Amino acid sequence: MTPPGPAAPPSPRSALARDKLMRTAERLYAEHGFANVSVRQISEAAGQRNNSAVQYHFESRDGLIKTILSSHTQLVEKHRIAMVEALRGQDTVSLEEHYRCLILPTVEHHIEAGTPAWSARFFAQALVEPALRDYVLQEHLDTPSYRLLNELGGIRRDGVRPELFARHGTMVRQLSVHAFAELEYDLANGRIDPAATEDSWRTLGQDLITALCGLTTALLGPL
Amino acid sequence: MTPPGPAAPPSPRSALARDKLMRTAERLYAEHGFANVSVRQISEAAGQRNNSAVQYHFESRDGLIKTILSSHTQLVEKHRIAMVEALRGQDTVSLEEHYRCLILPTVEHHIEAGTPAWSARFFAQALVEPALRDYVLQEHLDTPSYRLLNELGGIRRDGVRPELFARHGTMVRQLSVHAFAELEYDLANGRIDPAATEDSWRTLGQDLITALCGLTTALLGPL
Repeated sequence: MTPPGPAAPPSPRSALARDKLMRTAERLYAEHGFANVSVRQISEAAGQRNNSAVQYHFESRDGLIKTILSSHTQLVEKHRIAMVEALRGQDTVSLEEHYRCLILPTVEHHIEAGTPAWSARFFAQALVEPALRDYVLQEHLDTPSYRLLNELGGIRRDGVRPELFARHGTMVRQLSVHAFAELEYDLANGRIDPAATEDSWRTLGQDLITALCGLTTALLGPL
Repeated sequence: MTPPGPAAPPSPRSALARDKLMRTAERLYAEHGFANVSVRQISEAAGQRNNSAVQYHFESRDGLIKTILSSHTQLVEKHRIAMVEALRGQDTVSLEEHYRCLILPTVEHHIEAGTPAWSARFFAQALVEPALRDYVLQEHLDTPSYRLLNELGGIRRDGVRPELFARHGTMVRQLSVHAFAELEYDLANGRIDPAATEDSWRTLGQDLITALCGLTTALLGPL
């Protein structure tokens, strides 16, 4: 008997089904919310005859959600690791360079994904979902590239109370996750000219970097 | 035959049941997420024998959620209207005064509500829920006191691109809503000494005001 799900090397057909389920789930969740979409609806919308396709491929709803999150995090990490490595050669890293390295890889990821897209809203929902919150913070925001970036000294730490430093980190995460979700929502709902999609991601990236530099300097003091 | 729900003047018993359902729903949703709580579970946890108690009192899940949101918004508005009225007598309003008026009424509301509390996490979830997002923005964030406050000139508008002004407003809302939810989560999960509850809300309020002043000045320029 073949063992179920991820343990078996997936056949091409199985890999296709997994991918279809992931993209369908991401879209339905982003548009309707975790509360309003059942795993059965996902299976049906993904054209799976078997209603337990989600269980078979991902073990559970949370397994499916985590797999979708990972697929995006890996792509953003690839961009960010390259940028962090480039910064490591410098003697000092400025606050703006720090935030360029934090924000621009996500901007590139969204531009590459094209429109319509759902990952930013999906991510924002996962961060607010009580059962997923800690997992998202640990696995998808406190990533290797993020920890490396924080070692480069672009954010002031000396003389800052640890609770304030932690709160600052939370604010930075919340602001960036929800700002990306907001732009994706506007794009999905025709509130932005589709021809301006790429520009709108880049402008958001620059606005976020500016806003975060101001927020950080006000809260932690200058470097 | 008595007409159902809100149209009828509620009896004391009915008012009590409504209140119990609201507090129970807020707690369950805040702790487990909209996706993981059914209206039936809410009725049962609120001690209602009738499984359709939510339908009877609020017509639907969304009706229940909207009623809970309104109960908090009204209390925050009461504080904020008083603060805005006090500011109106001044010749000029500073950026810091603007943000004190935006943030401190919510701080007071959370301190009055005591611990344990669920409203901040409940509110953050509603803002991220696709079907409720626009409603929350219009009815609970763009309130009369907020519009009055924005007429007092504490935020620079001259020479600011309308899209940037709108984005700035979004960032301010996202940051404050999710920062309050974050502190409530930490308090609920024993990550903060219960004796420091009131202080922790006040410190968050001050940190938010500082962060928002920095963010706004960076993004829109000085007043």
